[in-house]
Amino acid sequence: MEKNLFNLKKYLSEKCQLVDCALDAYLPPATQYPEVIFEAMRYSVLNGGKRLRPILVLAACDAVGGCADVAMPTACSLEFIHAFSLIHDDLPAMDNDDLRRGKPTNHKVFGDAIAILAGDALFAFAFQTITGETRGVPAEVVVEVTRRIAAAAGTGGMVVGQVVDMISEGQAADAKIMEFMHAHKTGALIDIAVISGGLLGGGSDAQIDALSTYGKKIGLAFQIADDILDIEGDVDKLGKPIGSDVGKGKSTYPSLYGLAKSKELARRAVDDAVNALDMFDERADPLRAIAQFIVDRES
Amino acid sequence: MEKNLFNLKKYLSEKCQLVDCALDAYLPPATQYPEVIFEAMRYSVLNGGKRLRPILVLAACDAVGGCADVAMPTACSLEFIHAFSLIHDDLPAMDNDDLRRGKPTNHKVFGDAIAILAGDALFAFAFQTITGETRGVPAEVVVEVTRRIAAAAGTGGMVVGQVVDMISEGQAADAKIMEFMHAHKTGALIDIAVISGGLLGGGSDAQIDALSTYGKKIGLAFQIADDILDIEGDVDKLGKPIGSDVGKGKSTYPSLYGLAKSKELARRAVDDAVNALDMFDERADPLRAIAQFIVDRES
Repeated sequence: MEKNLFNLKKYLSEKCQLVDCALDAYLPPATQYPEVIFEAMRYSVLNGGKRLRPILVLAACDAVGGCADVAMPTACSLEFIHAFSLIHDDLPAMDNDDLRRGKPTNHKVFGDAIAILAGDALFAFAFQTITGETRGVPAEVVVEVTRRIAAAAGTGGMVVGQVVDMISEGQAADAKIMEFMHAHKTGALIDIAVISGGLLGGGSDAQIDALSTYGKKIGLAFQIADDILDIEGDVDKLGKPIGSDVGKGKSTYPSLYGLAKSKELARRAVDDAVNALDMFDERADPLRAIAQFIVDRES
Repeated sequence: MEKNLFNLKKYLSEKCQLVDCALDAYLPPATQYPEVIFEAMRYSVLNGGKRLRPILVLAACDAVGGCADVAMPTACSLEFIHAFSLIHDDLPAMDNDDLRRGKPTNHKVFGDAIAILAGDALFAFAFQTITGETRGVPAEVVVEVTRRIAAAAGTGGMVVGQVVDMISEGQAADAKIMEFMHAHKTGALIDIAVISGGLLGGGSDAQIDALSTYGKKIGLAFQIADDILDIEGDVDKLGKPIGSDVGKGKSTYPSLYGLAKSKELARRAVDDAVNALDMFDERADPLRAIAQFIVDRES
C-alpha cells in the first residue's frame, strides 16, 4: 500500500513549515497601528496548528500536476478562515471556551470586542490574500475559487453548520441533523480545500469531481475521529478536556451509533476517500496518506 | 449648477428600488434550513435603508460610461458588508446598541450568537455575490474589485476603524486619531464604492483616481454631517437619540472644531468632491448631486 512507501510525517512537517512561513509573511506585522488587532490576528493564526486545510490545498494541486506555489495564497486563506471560525465559535455568546490547544482563547487574551473584530479581519484578509497574491493562474479560476470558498465558509457551509450546532445545543440531535451540521461546519471547508487545490492546479472536471468525493469522505472521517477522540483521546495531546461533547449533551457518532460502529464508519469513509483517487498517479500519494492519518491522529 | 437641473430625489428613489429588488433576489429565502440565519440576514439588510453605498457604485459606473447592470452584484455586496458591520458594531461586546433606525438591533431579536453568525454570513455572502453574479466584466477586473473591497472592509479600512473606535472609548481622541478612525470605519467603504463602480464600468486610471478623490471627500463630509446631526438632528428622522456620541464622551468634529467650523469643513469637502469630477460630463451629475445631499440630509 502507498501509505507504507510514502513518508507522511516528513511530508506534513515540510509542508507545515512552508505554510507557517507563508502565513507569517502574508499577515500584517503586529507593529502596525492599531497594534492590538494585528496581534490578535497573529495570536490565533500562528499557534502551531496542524495546517491540515492548507496542506490539503497544496497536496490536491500537486495531485493534478499543478505547481503548488500557485496554490499557497489560497492555502493560507483557508487557514485564515479556519482561525476566524475558531475565534468566533469560542466566544462567550457561542461555545464559551476558555482554552484552545491548551492556550487561552482569543477573547480571553484580547477581550470580546477585539476577538470579534480579529475574526472579521481574518475573514476579510482571506479574500484579500486569494485575490491579491495568487499568481500564474487565469483570473477566471481565481474568481471561481473565491466564489466557492465564500459559499463554503458562509451560507453554503461553515456558518450554517455553526448555526445548527447552536440551535441544537443541549438537545440530542438526530442522525440527519448531526450529519447536516458536520458536513457544513467542518466538512465544507475540507471539501473546498481539495477542490481549490485541484482548480488552481488546472485539474479536469473529472479530477475535480474525484477530489470533491475524496474531500467529503475525509471530512466525514475527520468528524467521526474527532468524536472518538473526545471519548478515547489523551487530554495532553488533545489540549482540551475529554468528554466535553458528551458533557454538553451533544449528539456524536458514538452516542448515536456506538463506538465500534463509529470506528467502522470512519474506516469505511477513509477507504471511500482513497478509492475516489483511483484515477490519479503517485502524485496523489500524499492525499492517500492524509486520509489514513485523519483517523489515526491523536489530536 | 447641475444639482438644480438634476432631480436627485427621483434618482435616489428609483435606484433605491432597483437595489432593494436585487438585494431581495440575491439573498437566500428565509424558508431555507436553518431558517433563523436567513431571517436574521434578511432582517438587517431589507430594512428600508438609504442604500447610499450601492447607489454610489451604480452612479460611478454610469459616470465612466459603463452599463450599471454589471455593477449591481458589487453594489449589493457593499450593502451586505455594511449590514454585517452594523450587526457586529451593535453587539453588547461592542457598542451595545438596542435600536437601529428605530427598530430593535439584530441581537435583540435573534440573540448574540445568531447575530454574530448573521454578520459573518453576510460578509461571506458579499464575496460570493461579487464573484458569482457579476457578468459582462473581464475576470481580472472582478479579481481586482474583490481584492480592493476585502482590503477596504478589513485590515485596510472598516474593521481597523472600528478597532480604533473601541480602544478610544470613553476618552476624547485627538483630531489625528479621530480622522484615522473615520477614514477607515466609514470612509473606506464609501471610497471603495465609487472606485468599484468606476472599475466595473471600465473607467480609465485618471477617472478612477478622480473617483477616489471624490469618494474620500464625500466620506469626510458624510462623517462631519453625521456628527452635526447628532447635535442638531431630529430624533424621529434619525431613529436614534440626539447627543448619543457626545454622551459617550467620543470626539466629534463639533467637539474638536466647534459647530460653525465643522459646517465649513463639511461644505469645503463637498466642494472638493464636486471639483474632483471636473473631467466627467453630465453622466456624473448624480454623483455631484449626491455630494450635496450628503450634507443636506436629515438622517
